[in-house]
Amino acid sequence: MDHSIFETIDTLYDKMVETRRYLHQYPELSFHETETAKYIADTYSDLGIPYEANVGGNGVIATIEGGRPGKTVALRADFDALPIQEQNDHLSFCSKNEGVMHACGHDGHTAELLGLAEAVWQHKQDLPGTLVLVHQHAEEFTPGGAKPIIESGALDHVDAVFGTHLWVNTDYGTIDVSKGAFMAGADGFKIKIQGKGGHGAQPHQTKDAIVIASDLVSSLQQIVARRIDPLKTAVVTTGTIEGGTAFNVIADTATLTGTVRTFETEVQDTIIEEMERIIKGVCTAAGADYEFSYQKGYPPVVNHEKEASLILEEASHADASLKTREVEPSMAGEDFAYYLQEKPGAFYFTGAKLPNHYYPHHHPKFDFDERAMLHGAKTLMQAYLSYQNHS
Amino acid sequence: MDHSIFETIDTLYDKMVETRRYLHQYPELSFHETETAKYIADTYSDLGIPYEANVGGNGVIATIEGGRPGKTVALRADFDALPIQEQNDHLSFCSKNEGVMHACGHDGHTAELLGLAEAVWQHKQDLPGTLVLVHQHAEEFTPGGAKPIIESGALDHVDAVFGTHLWVNTDYGTIDVSKGAFMAGADGFKIKIQGKGGHGAQPHQTKDAIVIASDLVSSLQQIVARRIDPLKTAVVTTGTIEGGTAFNVIADTATLTGTVRTFETEVQDTIIEEMERIIKGVCTAAGADYEFSYQKGYPPVVNHEKEASLILEEASHADASLKTREVEPSMAGEDFAYYLQEKPGAFYFTGAKLPNHYYPHHHPKFDFDERAMLHGAKTLMQAYLSYQNHS
Amino acid sequence: MDHSIFETIDTLYDKMVETRRYLHQYPELSFHETETAKYIADTYSDLGIPYEANVGGNGVIATIEGGRPGKTVALRADFDALPIQEQNDHLSFCSKNEGVMHACGHDGHTAELLGLAEAVWQHKQDLPGTLVLVHQHAEEFTPGGAKPIIESGALDHVDAVFGTHLWVNTDYGTIDVSKGAFMAGADGFKIKIQGKGGHGAQPHQTKDAIVIASDLVSSLQQIVARRIDPLKTAVVTTGTIEGGTAFNVIADTATLTGTVRTFETEVQDTIIEEMERIIKGVCTAAGADYEFSYQKGYPPVVNHEKEASLILEEASHADASLKTREVEPSMAGEDFAYYLQEKPGAFYFTGAKLPNHYYPHHHPKFDFDERAMLHGAKTLMQAYLSYQNHS
Amino acid sequence: MDHSIFETIDTLYDKMVETRRYLHQYPELSFHETETAKYIADTYSDLGIPYEANVGGNGVIATIEGGRPGKTVALRADFDALPIQEQNDHLSFCSKNEGVMHACGHDGHTAELLGLAEAVWQHKQDLPGTLVLVHQHAEEFTPGGAKPIIESGALDHVDAVFGTHLWVNTDYGTIDVSKGAFMAGADGFKIKIQGKGGHGAQPHQTKDAIVIASDLVSSLQQIVARRIDPLKTAVVTTGTIEGGTAFNVIADTATLTGTVRTFETEVQDTIIEEMERIIKGVCTAAGADYEFSYQKGYPPVVNHEKEASLILEEASHADASLKTREVEPSMAGEDFAYYLQEKPGAFYFTGAKLPNHYYPHHHPKFDFDERAMLHGAKTLMQAYLSYQNHS
Repeated sequence: MDHSIFETIDTLYDKMVETRRYLHQYPELSFHETETAKYIADTYSDLGIPYEANVGGNGVIATIEGGRPGKTVALRADFDALPIQEQNDHLSFCSKNEGVMHACGHDGHTAELLGLAEAVWQHKQDLPGTLVLVHQHAEEFTPGGAKPIIESGALDHVDAVFGTHLWVNTDYGTIDVSKGAFMAGADGFKIKIQGKGGHGAQPHQTKDAIVIASDLVSSLQQIVARRIDPLKTAVVTTGTIEGGTAFNVIADTATLTGTVRTFETEVQDTIIEEMERIIKGVCTAAGADYEFSYQKGYPPVVNHEKEASLILEEASHADASLKTREVEPSMAGEDFAYYLQEKPGAFYFTGAKLPNHYYPHHHPKFDFDERAMLHGAKTLMQAYLSYQNHS
Repeated sequence: MDHSIFETIDTLYDKMVETRRYLHQYPELSFHETETAKYIADTYSDLGIPYEANVGGNGVIATIEGGRPGKTVALRADFDALPIQEQNDHLSFCSKNEGVMHACGHDGHTAELLGLAEAVWQHKQDLPGTLVLVHQHAEEFTPGGAKPIIESGALDHVDAVFGTHLWVNTDYGTIDVSKGAFMAGADGFKIKIQGKGGHGAQPHQTKDAIVIASDLVSSLQQIVARRIDPLKTAVVTTGTIEGGTAFNVIADTATLTGTVRTFETEVQDTIIEEMERIIKGVCTAAGADYEFSYQKGYPPVVNHEKEASLILEEASHADASLKTREVEPSMAGEDFAYYLQEKPGAFYFTGAKLPNHYYPHHHPKFDFDERAMLHGAKTLMQAYLSYQNHS
Repeated sequence: MDHSIFETIDTLYDKMVETRRYLHQYPELSFHETETAKYIADTYSDLGIPYEANVGGNGVIATIEGGRPGKTVALRADFDALPIQEQNDHLSFCSKNEGVMHACGHDGHTAELLGLAEAVWQHKQDLPGTLVLVHQHAEEFTPGGAKPIIESGALDHVDAVFGTHLWVNTDYGTIDVSKGAFMAGADGFKIKIQGKGGHGAQPHQTKDAIVIASDLVSSLQQIVARRIDPLKTAVVTTGTIEGGTAFNVIADTATLTGTVRTFETEVQDTIIEEMERIIKGVCTAAGADYEFSYQKGYPPVVNHEKEASLILEEASHADASLKTREVEPSMAGEDFAYYLQEKPGAFYFTGAKLPNHYYPHHHPKFDFDERAMLHGAKTLMQAYLSYQNHS
Repeated sequence: MDHSIFETIDTLYDKMVETRRYLHQYPELSFHETETAKYIADTYSDLGIPYEANVGGNGVIATIEGGRPGKTVALRADFDALPIQEQNDHLSFCSKNEGVMHACGHDGHTAELLGLAEAVWQHKQDLPGTLVLVHQHAEEFTPGGAKPIIESGALDHVDAVFGTHLWVNTDYGTIDVSKGAFMAGADGFKIKIQGKGGHGAQPHQTKDAIVIASDLVSSLQQIVARRIDPLKTAVVTTGTIEGGTAFNVIADTATLTGTVRTFETEVQDTIIEEMERIIKGVCTAAGADYEFSYQKGYPPVVNHEKEASLILEEASHADASLKTREVEPSMAGEDFAYYLQEKPGAFYFTGAKLPNHYYPHHHPKFDFDERAMLHGAKTLMQAYLSYQNHS
């Protein structure tokens, strides 16, 4: 397949922008993204590309069989949005759905994969192998859409899988990837301290849930500081604390929620064990009870070395202006992890930082450089082709 | 004045119950108790007892000049209610005002003082001195009603002042009082920690407000444990804690509210100073900012020794079934404190515990033994008479 | 007995000073004060006053039967010293025993009681009742000398017992006493944390005993702050902490020692229970072991109301220049407590502060105003006489 | 140079053992190792190999110019011992110097380098390049011997430098190395809290140094847990804590010492800054003073990638039984770091674990498998030759 596929992608840029902006106005929450799924299905229908809808939920998978022999490779884009009220009133395409926003760039992911599909469809006679276009729902909310899509069997015949995230922490024009651990495993926890409330002036007749919860937050710092191998990576964050109903009443209960990030199961296991030990100890010291629930989230995204090397070494074949970097892993999480547990492949970041407007992913003012959608589409195409050449 | 005044009070018991139950159904919040004030004023009007309304706000003060010479003594009852949704559906006179409840017994205080007034009015020729009946609004909410009533000058000519609280922590039939400190000074505070929020997986780019707030709660324990004379009494309670918006986002701010109880200005001053020192230190250690506000509440209720002794020694003259006890002070607060800063007098508890229904003051199921209203009315009368005899 | 006894005491002042200075040079540790005991016995022997030595250990008890009928009253002075190296080189009578010092004034107590005995011996015909002069060893070191003296039966026939402490925290010329609790119960504790040591760079393979011990010290603050009735008095002090052997090795063990002060058994019990709970909880949270030992020391010194009132009201009969004060209790401890558990009596402080040399009791530069020995001797005499008159 | 050099090394094994055991009996402390230096110099003198003594202190450097052209490569062995009382009484060659012990294997390092020198001297005609044999004093004690040796200029003409450590945490027969960070930077700190002491029963008149120090230990946990990038490695260990003189006296001062381990200057800087911030904050909260000293120790040992690869890929050329592993860095420190800041090179571990006797380095029962000295000597020789071939 010659380089003209990349030129065809370039010609579809305006359409990608149009698609992205349309989707941006009509964001839908994870597991409820039916209109978006219909939009994707209709697009494939209009193009004449065969597809299957309702895969593992709201997922849509299209398939283009190339005119030449080769491997079957899946490219994935997610399409759900977040429960955030957008604050980008200056944008003509600001969200029209109250309290819902494409604040992570999944609108762009969808637009770039649809653009890529249209381009490839025009070149399908020259295409080696089979291209599987995976539009995944529900990435933002566990248990996520990747797992049911895999369990549906739709990817059983796939040889490899690639994906990318438009990333505003990376400069436009740069592709970031790592061989091995690339994104962290992200878990959630909730701890409820059951003390014994009472009059604010009679502490001795109570078990002060706020004092207990505060002790607990302090003691949890010891996990990362003292109980995990310093050469390993771990984060234990208490994200919320809430206790008490009145300034002059001693709190009966207090509740903490938080997140744990790791790259290895062994570290994750140690953290859970130490949390349980610390919570039990702190509550024993106070004579209080507790409830502790721990929700394992997505596992870490661990790239396969060979496939990650293809990105690192050949992504710039798609566009000479691109720079690739081998980077340290990100502590953020992604359910792309599940695909990489099943198949060879790699996930990478496509730099999309706007020149004068930086707000992190999940921020009410988040936006990205739309030109990066071309980089996303082209590098995914290149990953497909590199894999055909090297496997 | 002979003992028949107490028999007259007895005859008014049914009326007291009726009054109390009526008021209980129509509770009003502090500083908004206009209908209750009108009810009191109308009662005096109907009885023909001279009174003044709108004293220092919603206060009502009636005056009965006795037919015999003597001192001028004020007896006080408060009449505001609390922002609590009553849960006493079994009572025929349960609150009809949504979210407002007489959960402290002020309905009973009002009923017993009105009953006492009616009884005395019948005996006024025999009464030595002048009886000032102070119906005070807004005891439950700082700055309270006592202060503006005093500032109105309405009590300038008073020689002494007495008051009682129907008290469900004391058995029916018992009168509790102390010479000296009787109820604590009760202050409030609010501390807002301004950290720096961020992604739950990137603690190093944040100043974790929840960790800082937790440190602070722990460090505040040192005030009572290490920085106050062990022979002095002090309580520092953090009643509420709140921080963070999502389990996977590091909190930008966290807020604590709490209460401080003391019996001496010097201890109160030390606590404020040490709180400021500790908050500053904890925030310095974290590079965070804070806002700290401290609201001084009512000062401690400190009984005058001679007047408290009158209660202790002579309360049972009013009713031979009454037992009096000299007790340790309560950590609760009362704006009766202000009267005792200006005039000799005493405040005491009239035991009102129900046999099989104990819920503390301010509880949605609070109720008291109505028969104790007779004890309240009679002991106040006795205090009036004892003071006439002994001063 | 007329007032001339006090004049006789005055005449013995130079001898008291001589005795005190001699004893000051030859201090002996608790339970090893044999030479001092011999000195006391020899003095009584020389005076011809009957005495018994080796009472309950090194105790010496002399008895003067008066010529007139009356009660049997004991007056007590202690005579042991402390393991402190004196730093009063400017004193001609500085300690000659290396590392041992009369740093609490027991030399003065002995001198004043011997002086008193000599004076009374001269007036014995006029003396009502029987005077028992108790020279007690080992007050500074639990289990103390008071207990074995009592157990020896030597005081079985005594009706009351009085004692005083020369006190440099009180001005010369002042007598401090309280009715009821006067000095605290003083206990000791030791906690050894057994963690698991290791290389300073490998915390995850250890249980860091220093971190655990630090947590424990912080958590112990909650006992006084949150778990004891704010109206009660309690102190929990960690006096020493020690852990680790090298800056770059994680500590295997850490040891805390401390003291607890209370006035009531119930509070003492709660503290022990809460300490056990907290230590267990903190060690559970760390997976560490511990040893906890708690030594109950002397109980609180609780004066008998009537006898304390005698001091308060009549001490100045002995010397018109004396002022008496009713004071709050001291947190310090004394084994005089045991006498008061058995017999009526009182213990009080005789002000002995030097004008320009204040160092607290137990300080290497401690000294007291020797003139106060006259106040001590005279007020003890007066207590003896007041008791005869009022019982 | 053919493989016979390795056979020659084998023939010198008994001599190496003899040398090691002799040195083991006469260990000398860092900067005082004059007899050991003399022993080394005498050995070279006897062999006829040119050397220089007193290099940068007690260092000894011998040089063997090969008969063939090539690069100049230094091999380094350290020779100081530790202030530890040996507990290996079962060894015939147990230390004869009271309180001093070769507890880290430097005796073996010296023996293997001397053996290697003797072997090379026999083959010197075939040797390409110039071999520089660096016997370094004072590795165990900062500022160490490496720095003054470098500053003496003795290595200015050297092209590369290699070294190894006999390592009982690695199995005999295994060589461990990493490309890049291999051993941590190791710093020391000391913090003295100046509170205000006092009577154990009067906390309000003191600033309790033990409570402050405990707070500090707890708060220091936040550095690694919250203030360092989770992807970076850092350890902050408090190794010793000491405060107070008596169980019933509140401590005036408390002292902490500890160590910090990092691999990057930026992380080290952040830790120092955060320690200062936390110490200041904790002391501010208590109104206490402090002294904080931080001693930067050896920087991290960072291998040069090319030279580390030579070890990894070619060490087994020296001995086919050897296995090499690329490992994660160790948190221990080494002043070999300084050589690698100046010259290309690598440092690696030579597995020396005894089958049934494991005690870690610096333990009083430390011992190693002497056969590993052959592995050390041979792999150093191989590193020399590999470097000649590949540069």
